[in-house]
Amino acid sequence: MRYELYYWPEIQGRGEFVRLALEDAGADYVDVARAAGKNGGTPAMLKLLDGSRVAHPPFAPPFLKAGKLLIGQTANILLYLGEHEGLAPKTEAGRLWTHQLQLTIADFLVEIHNTHHPIGSGLYYEDQKIEAKRRTEDFLKNRLPKYLSYFERVLEQNPSGSRWLVGARLTYADLSLFQIIEGLRYAFPQAMQRTEKKIPQVVALHGRVAERPRIAAYLQSERRIAFNEMGIFRKYPELE
Amino acid sequence: MRYELYYWPEIQGRGEFVRLALEDAGADYVDVARAAGKNGGTPAMLKLLDGSRVAHPPFAPPFLKAGKLLIGQTANILLYLGEHEGLAPKTEAGRLWTHQLQLTIADFLVEIHNTHHPIGSGLYYEDQKIEAKRRTEDFLKNRLPKYLSYFERVLEQNPSGSRWLVGARLTYADLSLFQIIEGLRYAFPQAMQRTEKKIPQVVALHGRVAERPRIAAYLQSERRIAFNEMGIFRKYPELE
Repeated sequence: MRYELYYWPEIQGRGEFVRLALEDAGADYVDVARAAGKNGGTPAMLKLLDGSRVAHPPFAPPFLKAGKLLIGQTANILLYLGEHEGLAPKTEAGRLWTHQLQLTIADFLVEIHNTHHPIGSGLYYEDQKIEAKRRTEDFLKNRLPKYLSYFERVLEQNPSGSRWLVGARLTYADLSLFQIIEGLRYAFPQAMQRTEKKIPQVVALHGRVAERPRIAAYLQSERRIAFNEMGIFRKYPELE
Repeated sequence: MRYELYYWPEIQGRGEFVRLALEDAGADYVDVARAAGKNGGTPAMLKLLDGSRVAHPPFAPPFLKAGKLLIGQTANILLYLGEHEGLAPKTEAGRLWTHQLQLTIADFLVEIHNTHHPIGSGLYYEDQKIEAKRRTEDFLKNRLPKYLSYFERVLEQNPSGSRWLVGARLTYADLSLFQIIEGLRYAFPQAMQRTEKKIPQVVALHGRVAERPRIAAYLQSERRIAFNEMGIFRKYPELE
């Protein structure tokens, strides 16, 4: 089966968490909005998003077509891929714990996004710069260390060792935490330089993910979109 | 099995979405932080939250003890209860769709919270009132109608009819949408009076949930905490 991923073609955004899972699994997939031809491009995505005859309409991208299933919400897509692509434990306890971590990563991501969009996601950054500055100060001082030290603690307290977040094997949550670190290093290089000294296990996990052959190949490929100031992680030096 | 729910004792908050599911299912549970005795109260909750020997430490309340499982993240707890308490379909497609809707409700809830806390969750409302006013304006104009009309559309496009969000039976997502409407009516009565005219199916679903015998009994009971200005839904007339 060839998966169809639907996401905005010009940013990593939330779609990247799905891409990393598909790439690490070596899954066959097409990134529809980035594909050429009459069935590709952003219109193909909008058709499913706005369709009045879609039984399970998604609220927003990303969404994944897997056979007859149309699955929306990043964490929900990963829940599915975790089970079908061997990226999560098979036990109920392990599946729930992996998903719990993913949902905490999702909360973290919203807070990261809101540093540059504290007033409204539909407004330009330029129209909320003053508020963004204030929000980012609070985020870097309080929220960034709180979230990152939480994941450090999860690694430290993992009864199977500190290599991965869940048990002794990689899960989709590890891939997502890798992406969070990648993005934070891009957006807040100075704050991360300070903070990373306190989270050695998280930094080591990031390195471990980066070295996985399929991930390393992906990061070098044209499939990996560069970070930019349209995505979730944005480098606005005036905010740091 | 008696479930143990851990959540802040003085607010509905995110815990309320779990309480509604437990109540509708007629499940046996104790609301630990609200219980008396040496095993109750907020300290019992903080012990699990901060414990250094907890294998699956939650990032924040609510969390649920179900036998040996300790489950965090509201949507994840509902995923579990959906399966074990008959509050979600048994098919994979139905389970994923229900969860997808729940995650969209969770996104909506974050945006509702951020109307009064746009700068930082750790700061007082009084210290971000000006920004809150601006954020609320954008929320009421753009985001509130967008989310509510989405759920209206989900009901309209449900192939099994418009009584419930998923298929022909109630799921935990219906209970959560009920709670969203309850909270929005409390926080933004004027905006809701205008908006509700455009979402008749959502309003009807809210009424259907309120009339379920166990929910009706719960809402009348002392177990239902009143809305207040410490929770997610807050009535600040200056914001509306």
